[in-house]
Amino acid sequence: MTTITGFDVYDVRFPTSSSADGSDAMNKDADYSAAYIVLHTDDPDTFGCGFTFTIGRGNDICAAAIEQRALPLLGREAAQLCDTPGTTYRMLKQDSQLRWLGPDKGVEHLALGAVMNAVWDMAARRAGLPLWKLLAGMTPEQLVDATDLSYLSDVLTRDEAIDMLAKLELTKQERIDQLEWTGYPCYTTSAGWLGYSDDKLRRLCQEAVDEGYRHIKLKVGANLEDDIRRLGIAREVIGPDANLMIDANQVWDVPEAIAWVRELAQFKPLWIEEPTSPDDILGHAAVRDAVAPVGVATGEHGMNRVLFKQLFQANAIDYCQLDACRLASVNEILAVQLMAAKFGIPVNPHAGGVGLCELVQHLSIFDFIAVSGDLAGRVTEFVDHLHEHFTDPCLVSDGAYVLPSKPGYSAQMFQASLDRFAYPNGSFWAATPRGSAERSRRARRVAEGTAFASVRSGEIS
Amino acid sequence: MTTITGFDVYDVRFPTSSSADGSDAMNKDADYSAAYIVLHTDDPDTFGCGFTFTIGRGNDICAAAIEQRALPLLGREAAQLCDTPGTTYRMLKQDSQLRWLGPDKGVEHLALGAVMNAVWDMAARRAGLPLWKLLAGMTPEQLVDATDLSYLSDVLTRDEAIDMLAKLELTKQERIDQLEWTGYPCYTTSAGWLGYSDDKLRRLCQEAVDEGYRHIKLKVGANLEDDIRRLGIAREVIGPDANLMIDANQVWDVPEAIAWVRELAQFKPLWIEEPTSPDDILGHAAVRDAVAPVGVATGEHGMNRVLFKQLFQANAIDYCQLDACRLASVNEILAVQLMAAKFGIPVNPHAGGVGLCELVQHLSIFDFIAVSGDLAGRVTEFVDHLHEHFTDPCLVSDGAYVLPSKPGYSAQMFQASLDRFAYPNGSFWAATPRGSAERSRRARRVAEGTAFASVRSGEIS
Repeated sequence: MTTITGFDVYDVRFPTSSSADGSDAMNKDADYSAAYIVLHTDDPDTFGCGFTFTIGRGNDICAAAIEQRALPLLGREAAQLCDTPGTTYRMLKQDSQLRWLGPDKGVEHLALGAVMNAVWDMAARRAGLPLWKLLAGMTPEQLVDATDLSYLSDVLTRDEAIDMLAKLELTKQERIDQLEWTGYPCYTTSAGWLGYSDDKLRRLCQEAVDEGYRHIKLKVGANLEDDIRRLGIAREVIGPDANLMIDANQVWDVPEAIAWVRELAQFKPLWIEEPTSPDDILGHAAVRDAVAPVGVATGEHGMNRVLFKQLFQANAIDYCQLDACRLASVNEILAVQLMAAKFGIPVNPHAGGVGLCELVQHLSIFDFIAVSGDLAGRVTEFVDHLHEHFTDPCLVSDGAYVLPSKPGYSAQMFQASLDRFAYPNGSFWAATPRGSAERSRRARRVAEGTAFASVRSGEIS
Repeated sequence: MTTITGFDVYDVRFPTSSSADGSDAMNKDADYSAAYIVLHTDDPDTFGCGFTFTIGRGNDICAAAIEQRALPLLGREAAQLCDTPGTTYRMLKQDSQLRWLGPDKGVEHLALGAVMNAVWDMAARRAGLPLWKLLAGMTPEQLVDATDLSYLSDVLTRDEAIDMLAKLELTKQERIDQLEWTGYPCYTTSAGWLGYSDDKLRRLCQEAVDEGYRHIKLKVGANLEDDIRRLGIAREVIGPDANLMIDANQVWDVPEAIAWVRELAQFKPLWIEEPTSPDDILGHAAVRDAVAPVGVATGEHGMNRVLFKQLFQANAIDYCQLDACRLASVNEILAVQLMAAKFGIPVNPHAGGVGLCELVQHLSIFDFIAVSGDLAGRVTEFVDHLHEHFTDPCLVSDGAYVLPSKPGYSAQMFQASLDRFAYPNGSFWAATPRGSAERSRRARRVAEGTAFASVRSGEIS
């Protein structure tokens, strides 16, 4: 019997704000980060890695929340945790004191997602399968047992979910064979960060076309004239038939979104992404009505399954961009995939950041095999950075994710990366003024014996 | 010139789970807690206290988030922070890295609320006025400058908000005079916790009637037969004309909520509170359609102004129960009060917990004086516990909050209470097995030099 003997939590931060990678109209100085957990057992070959993605400050808050969320796993049997992931999820989620801090949103939900990502990673490793294949091999009943259907019965019952999955059961192998051949279609955002110069934009668009991409996404929303000029460049390079998507990262109110997108409609964008607050279901519905045929996409900040339920009910979106680390792992993602399939909305997950591409490839592949059975309108994000820190990095070829073949959820980072980029004690940060100041601050706190925080002016540089 | 020289953050927890105080169908073992901050200046008479309310575990996570959120205040001029609270709020809120962890929800939003509560407390103390009076003395322009109207322009513009406030400007003193005489109407939840016996319920209902309450609220949702019996007892004691409210604390899906409330409609509840997920705007609208004339109320878990905007747009609620610590303090609460007034929905704030009654009395009093101008359907929650820890406890007489007269937001706790109930080092917790184990765990962590968390089985008792 293999049991959970402990875990390690890491606050890992990459200094991406020093380039303009990841810059958009809302997030100008992101340090792409992961609050990362490794679950250990008494068998060194049985472990699980998981994380949530953040953009810098507050990654320590997530790490602290992850530690609390993971405590109930200690001493439990790995087989039981992995074989009944729905039960594991409900055990972790049921803490009513932690629930108060959400419910099902914010730091506590990110933390639950990170811990369950590690459980799913362990489950796939134990099975000797990549996660998508573990999921594809589960029966409809097993999948629905693992799914968080709470608060959803007005649009999706357990029986309905089982029926949906059962209908695709017999043809799963056909779709696996198809994807082994073609890969899963993806698009690139690497060209379109807001901080890039026009020349760099032009060059990166051409490179994307040359690499086989049929979809390219640009950030917009900071300045209308700039957006018009940049979209003109991109459309010129990619030609009239390739797909151009635009992403405003929530900077607009609803009326402003409508006016701005109408100005950009001349470049025939496939979708406008995050036109306004991610919480504004009715706002997205209003934008969608007003800017058609430009589609509306959102979801990377979609906090939970109840939000997505309403986005579907209100006909508010054309594309569902769920996030593998913002939702509470596969258990909640299954619910959103099932609802999206019922409403006929393509799920095109958000990716980029740290390790999101590694995770979402599994989700999209499984979605096609077992939930939607459809590739129409499907294209999953790909951003080409930070993959070198992962032991099983995603592989993209000719505009498509190649099916992962190694056991797990592709969630493991190299120990050398953790040692170098752990904040503030890793070798990279310890050598910076910021890391050094933070180390001193923490040491002083420890010396004074103050867990919380007697902070005095001058302490913070 | 007085500047912010530092702050202290406390993780304060009261062992309320040892009685059944606060027990409901969702939250069975709440330890009422506050993540509490005191802002200091170089003038000992100039300080500000603020907090967010939690129910136990995770209060440390909120405290850590509060520390980060408050850092930008260090070294700033108190006068400027207090005289332009909208600017202060936007400065703290604009951190895009912390925004990623929400946005505007969960732990980070609770923390922003706590810090801004302390700023408003300081502002009122500096003015020598109770907060309600400080707000009532501000011009429409000043109030709207302090209000977070972002993402709201499709239902409320700045000009519209100013016009609404200006219309009530000349008659404010009449309403102040009225409230000085009558107090602000409240209701009690002290009678109706789910864990109380029938005899205790009967006795507490009778006491509430004797104390002048015309509204009594009971928790429901755990067991339908129990609910029917308990509502029968309550209705019998309070008579046919007093108002009985029921509160399910989010335990139902939408169809279940409709069915259950129809069974309880025989007792003529004024409202059903939190029938389902607090995020489910369309779900609340469906419940409201189905259970009328029973009203629908929600808001204590209403995460932000965008959620409330949609609750109003969708005609989803009859009563808005915003929470003084879940929203980001007065800056966001003003936005919700203004929208509620525009849509004609009474704002009946959630209270109880730790210090929520102390805060919401100011908000409700101000709401009547300057925003709604109306008492129809208005009744603010009151729960009679833990007030003894506050230096300016709320005072209720004959079913109404007596207008607070001391300077501030009534947010200051006694140092003796902080010293006794700080977790885990306060004298109360240090003497308990749980507090003692937690102290050992933290000491071991410090000795090992691990900020995050190398946790091994057996470490946690």
